[in-house]
Amino acid sequence: MKAILLLSCPDRVGLVSRISHFLFERGGNILDLDEHVDTDQKLFFIRIAWDMDGFSIPASEVAEAFAPLAKEFNAAWKIRFAERKMKIAIFVSKYEHCLQEILWKHSIGELAIDIPLIISNHPTLKSLSEQYDIPFHVFPVTKDNKIEQEQKELELLNLHQVDTIVLARYMQILSAQFVNEYPSQIINIHHSFLPAFIGGNPYKQAYERGVKIIGATSHYVTENLDEGPIIEQDIIRISHRDSVKDLIRKGRDLERLVLARALYAHANHRILVHGRKTIVFD
Amino acid sequence: MKAILLLSCPDRVGLVSRISHFLFERGGNILDLDEHVDTDQKLFFIRIAWDMDGFSIPASEVAEAFAPLAKEFNAAWKIRFAERKMKIAIFVSKYEHCLQEILWKHSIGELAIDIPLIISNHPTLKSLSEQYDIPFHVFPVTKDNKIEQEQKELELLNLHQVDTIVLARYMQILSAQFVNEYPSQIINIHHSFLPAFIGGNPYKQAYERGVKIIGATSHYVTENLDEGPIIEQDIIRISHRDSVKDLIRKGRDLERLVLARALYAHANHRILVHGRKTIVFD
Amino acid sequence: MKAILLLSCPDRVGLVSRISHFLFERGGNILDLDEHVDTDQKLFFIRIAWDMDGFSIPASEVAEAFAPLAKEFNAAWKIRFAERKMKIAIFVSKYEHCLQEILWKHSIGELAIDIPLIISNHPTLKSLSEQYDIPFHVFPVTKDNKIEQEQKELELLNLHQVDTIVLARYMQILSAQFVNEYPSQIINIHHSFLPAFIGGNPYKQAYERGVKIIGATSHYVTENLDEGPIIEQDIIRISHRDSVKDLIRKGRDLERLVLARALYAHANHRILVHGRKTIVFD
Amino acid sequence: MKAILLLSCPDRVGLVSRISHFLFERGGNILDLDEHVDTDQKLFFIRIAWDMDGFSIPASEVAEAFAPLAKEFNAAWKIRFAERKMKIAIFVSKYEHCLQEILWKHSIGELAIDIPLIISNHPTLKSLSEQYDIPFHVFPVTKDNKIEQEQKELELLNLHQVDTIVLARYMQILSAQFVNEYPSQIINIHHSFLPAFIGGNPYKQAYERGVKIIGATSHYVTENLDEGPIIEQDIIRISHRDSVKDLIRKGRDLERLVLARALYAHANHRILVHGRKTIVFD
Repeated sequence: MKAILLLSCPDRVGLVSRISHFLFERGGNILDLDEHVDTDQKLFFIRIAWDMDGFSIPASEVAEAFAPLAKEFNAAWKIRFAERKMKIAIFVSKYEHCLQEILWKHSIGELAIDIPLIISNHPTLKSLSEQYDIPFHVFPVTKDNKIEQEQKELELLNLHQVDTIVLARYMQILSAQFVNEYPSQIINIHHSFLPAFIGGNPYKQAYERGVKIIGATSHYVTENLDEGPIIEQDIIRISHRDSVKDLIRKGRDLERLVLARALYAHANHRILVHGRKTIVFD
Repeated sequence: MKAILLLSCPDRVGLVSRISHFLFERGGNILDLDEHVDTDQKLFFIRIAWDMDGFSIPASEVAEAFAPLAKEFNAAWKIRFAERKMKIAIFVSKYEHCLQEILWKHSIGELAIDIPLIISNHPTLKSLSEQYDIPFHVFPVTKDNKIEQEQKELELLNLHQVDTIVLARYMQILSAQFVNEYPSQIINIHHSFLPAFIGGNPYKQAYERGVKIIGATSHYVTENLDEGPIIEQDIIRISHRDSVKDLIRKGRDLERLVLARALYAHANHRILVHGRKTIVFD
Repeated sequence: MKAILLLSCPDRVGLVSRISHFLFERGGNILDLDEHVDTDQKLFFIRIAWDMDGFSIPASEVAEAFAPLAKEFNAAWKIRFAERKMKIAIFVSKYEHCLQEILWKHSIGELAIDIPLIISNHPTLKSLSEQYDIPFHVFPVTKDNKIEQEQKELELLNLHQVDTIVLARYMQILSAQFVNEYPSQIINIHHSFLPAFIGGNPYKQAYERGVKIIGATSHYVTENLDEGPIIEQDIIRISHRDSVKDLIRKGRDLERLVLARALYAHANHRILVHGRKTIVFD
Repeated sequence: MKAILLLSCPDRVGLVSRISHFLFERGGNILDLDEHVDTDQKLFFIRIAWDMDGFSIPASEVAEAFAPLAKEFNAAWKIRFAERKMKIAIFVSKYEHCLQEILWKHSIGELAIDIPLIISNHPTLKSLSEQYDIPFHVFPVTKDNKIEQEQKELELLNLHQVDTIVLARYMQILSAQFVNEYPSQIINIHHSFLPAFIGGNPYKQAYERGVKIIGATSHYVTENLDEGPIIEQDIIRISHRDSVKDLIRKGRDLERLVLARALYAHANHRILVHGRKTIVFD
């Protein structure tokens, strides 16, 4: 079994030494270590993965054993185990490409996740969900019932002990209250190269602006629309020959790959969030 | 000698046939033809290059001969000859990388241009200009003397029959009056992936936003800052490891290549401007 | 209805004029025209798409009407109609990603094709084919029965009037005899950046060579393995952190996109083959 | 002052702990740490940069102090100091673009190197070298005098205590004897996407093969031509419109950027070589 520590704290001398010594003392062989120091803000970020085979304390006691050190460092931290797959809920509306991509990648074992449920405000993608044997729940959302429906969704998410919500082109804006229940745990895909073309119809905006490259951006959702910490972006070249329809077609491939890559990094505990930014360890 | 027609007009049946027949009648062998129809706006764009060897009328009479057809089509058009190099003035301030790139590419014969002069609001890059034997004129600009200095610059540009102005990281905003003297003839490089990070310090903006990709954009200058028709864009991947200084360093390579590519297309008469957009024929 | 002419012939004066005049005379509005002259070999390549609405002769007579002109030009040519979808047979073995991609893109209407059948040497992907309601035929191939099985496959392909065969990671080498039945009509995907890493296990080869970028290549199949005219290529950056397994994972995304793009260009009649090379009009 | 340790050894428990503890004990604040484990071959690679301010032993004694630990680990290792710039000799022939790029990047302070001399087998680039005030030595090479000339070059390199040789499109093949004097210290740029198009005229080879993407590769030189460990690669898209001359033009931009990036990584002590492969820490 593989354990992963994600930690951030004020920088100071000896952090790597103290943390690696903690593992060494207990017989932990480090499999992977990534470290980053934000020299402007004097902050330290680390991800360490180690082998639990031969580790002198069981998985259930690791966090407790590490807590005193973390406290001393005044750190934000968590320890996860690779074998315990994240539980992901996917939110969708009518577009299928992002859902299709995640379900397919999940089906071939590429993503270390469980998908206990899919939630939608439309019934459109029910049959796709059924193809992959994932329960599909419809919560139609209107201006009037939004908070109420979100409440029901939250209950369902709680019931399934969901770690992370993926908005796979979900066309509803979640309330601040909802978002705050899942800090740095809601992943969205925006079909533009953020911060360009925030908001609606980014392909039409891109077409009208005459850009030569379009993009897609996956980010954590915060209260402010399209302003959350960016996880992954990618682009594709376009030309005057491309209509809005062509942009949508080319963009579909971008969107699904960028979202899947963001989810891959998240599911493998490779991301630390700091303010408006992410540290994504390769 | 190679002649090039750039033409745009309302779309209708027979345009290619009529134009290519005009050339065929006069013995013109088409070397290259690119065409584009904007089906939304029902507009037709074409670039044709043909061989003047064996053409039955001399270069000096081609425009006059073609004029009636263009008038019938209600077209915007121009005919240029590849051997007659464009006259380019480069405007710079203190950053050398874009100037260096253009002067060097010019020196190895990559750009079909003449550079009769360089204009700057600072003396900084005088010695670089001298290395390449290009006259360097300094016009210090203050809030008070701007219009006056621009007037002198315009006179100098006129004297040298300048076709096109390249703003190679020129840190002054040109007046609308100046810009309107050179419609679709002033090429700027902006050090961001427009329309993201319009305005000052785009690398700092990009760093603070936490984007995973930065870009550079070359565009024609219009009255509205950073809003002109985009000619060329490119990007480079960055990570949390990159400081603002790293972004500046990586961005320098982007800026100079993107500007040089835009100038290459412009100098080879490969660009048609339509509203806020460009058609760039490869 | 949209008609498309693909033509190549020795270059000479007046080709565009004569061809476009042919269309103009008959009331054909050109929707799209791409032309290329290989100046080394003095060859002319053209693709013209025009609107059949208002065209004075019916689709069934267009080829006959154009034939004399083509003969005069000593041209290789064909005329196709966008509304008449190509009939594609997909050959697969055990890997599903390329098949999945094509079936899914077909299901959302992105590809102008019909898929009357899937052929495989293994039963593995039967259920995936059934999900998309495409008949799946298994022809197990051994050294001894190869020619015989290919004969049966050819009969089936004939029966379904198949235009094009897509080898979606089909792990058998087709006989020269089979290949010659479908000249420039068999599209393969090779999981490397050809001509690097020809043959088996290209990801392992790439890993061992320590390249920093991997690729995928879609090409027409000729008698010589991995030597046919390249249609499309793309790449992705890798690092020392990537194992062979990571290369396979990253490469899967490349392979399916590159193959789908090649098929898109082919199905839209955008490709002319000349010797070992392709002209792919955007 | 910043110190950098590059180390590789057989993997075992406690390496990071022991090494970081060595620094911690002496008051060394880690600025940057990158680690990699090759799980196939059970090898450990690390790069640690730390601040010498406040370090309890002086720079001159660091290596001696660390040696016992390295011996225990059976490690290959070196310690370098960022302030002590590498001494680089550039070898050129007639093409200027790579030399120009390095000299210019050096002139603006982008590369942490000194360039005590340039060596060429032709006088062509003498004036460019003089522009940047770098001594230029001509050693014409023939079949007969090669070993003798190399001997003189080696003496000159020794005299200037050169760390690293950059072959900036040097058109001579160095003898095995010469190469072995500078193991993993000679950086070459090959104008193709290796291992595609090994050997002469790769752009012509690429043109004739009809690839859709061309590349450039920077690698350490070993006895076997174009077979050394790859440091950096990059690519650019081409089309049927591009002639060999266009490939050369587009390739020039690739070559100089790829070589400069490889040199940047090398000069910043970011590269570990292992067999045919490199670990390049970002």
